[in-house]
Amino acid sequence: MIILGIDPGLATVGYAVLKTIIPANKKQDRNEKPKVLDFGCITTSAAWTPGERLVKINKEILSLIEIHDPDIISVESLFFFKNVKTAMPVSQAKGVILFTAAKKNIAIVEFTPLQVKMTMTGHGRAEKSQVQAMTKQLLDLSAFDNKHKDRKKDDAADALGVALCAVLHHKHSL
Amino acid sequence: MIILGIDPGLATVGYAVLKTIIPANKKQDRNEKPKVLDFGCITTSAAWTPGERLVKINKEILSLIEIHDPDIISVESLFFFKNVKTAMPVSQAKGVILFTAAKKNIAIVEFTPLQVKMTMTGHGRAEKSQVQAMTKQLLDLSAFDNKHKDRKKDDAADALGVALCAVLHHKHSL
Repeated sequence: MIILGIDPGLATVGYAVLKTIIPANKKQDRNEKPKVLDFGCITTSAAWTPGERLVKINKEILSLIEIHDPDIISVESLFFFKNVKTAMPVSQAKGVILFTAAKKNIAIVEFTPLQVKMTMTGHGRAEKSQVQAMTKQLLDLSAFDNKHKDRKKDDAADALGVALCAVLHHKHSL
Repeated sequence: MIILGIDPGLATVGYAVLKTIIPANKKQDRNEKPKVLDFGCITTSAAWTPGERLVKINKEILSLIEIHDPDIISVESLFFFKNVKTAMPVSQAKGVILFTAAKKNIAIVEFTPLQVKMTMTGHGRAEKSQVQAMTKQLLDLSAFDNKHKDRKKDDAADALGVALCAVLHHKHSL
């Protein structure tokens, strides 16, 4: 199964693509680490109009869908914001991401940052660094450790987390 | 010039299409009323997924663009919301609308409800009914008064207002 994790934003959209083997026997392969096929960020310029930024986000997500053909898109969803001015551009980007996925008939799951933390570390008050350490431990990042040193790993870490969250929830429901 | 006015929402998107004659001579035709070519609402069901609702909004806006070929899309933009839970679905719909317009290379202008009120009535504390009365007075609604009695005029009134706002601002800048 291929999972595309997305952390929405208007300036930066984090993404991560995981591949898992669905175990035929529940016990078999259960502990095999999901393989990270790709991760990174889509960035847009503040010099562009909001429409132009959303067109780029749509185009890049479509390109990821074409390359990886994901079965599920897992989106990080905030339900509370410190202020509404932050909520609006993030929600605009999320709207375009949900539209893009639905247009391609790909199932969408949503997890809040709290759900990601709970799933990954077992408690909701975990530090960001703990979640990232856990993400690294749970994933097969072998293809990336040396090759992509210049990649902004931090920006895509939330996308890795929300993709992995979908994998773990899926495993528990098997 | 054709203006498509849009009042975004996830459940209901109000729309209005106006046609104005751009005066060759500034004085000539300045007082001619913009003609209402179309107005109404795009509605989506709460039983659908957010993605499906956004796909319908995109499809219907594309259809309006194809039929009327607007020069400008004027969008009502809220910058303050009573609560963030209202802001998010409206912003998601707005994101898809801005994306759809930019993808078609159509210029976008945005007006807040306050700017619409100020433009139409001259003061920001005008009642909704005053704005609607002014909208009716400033527009040539002859094609609709008898034909579309069943049309939900109230739902599309904000879209008529924001479209007219774009016309009035454009006239003043001539």
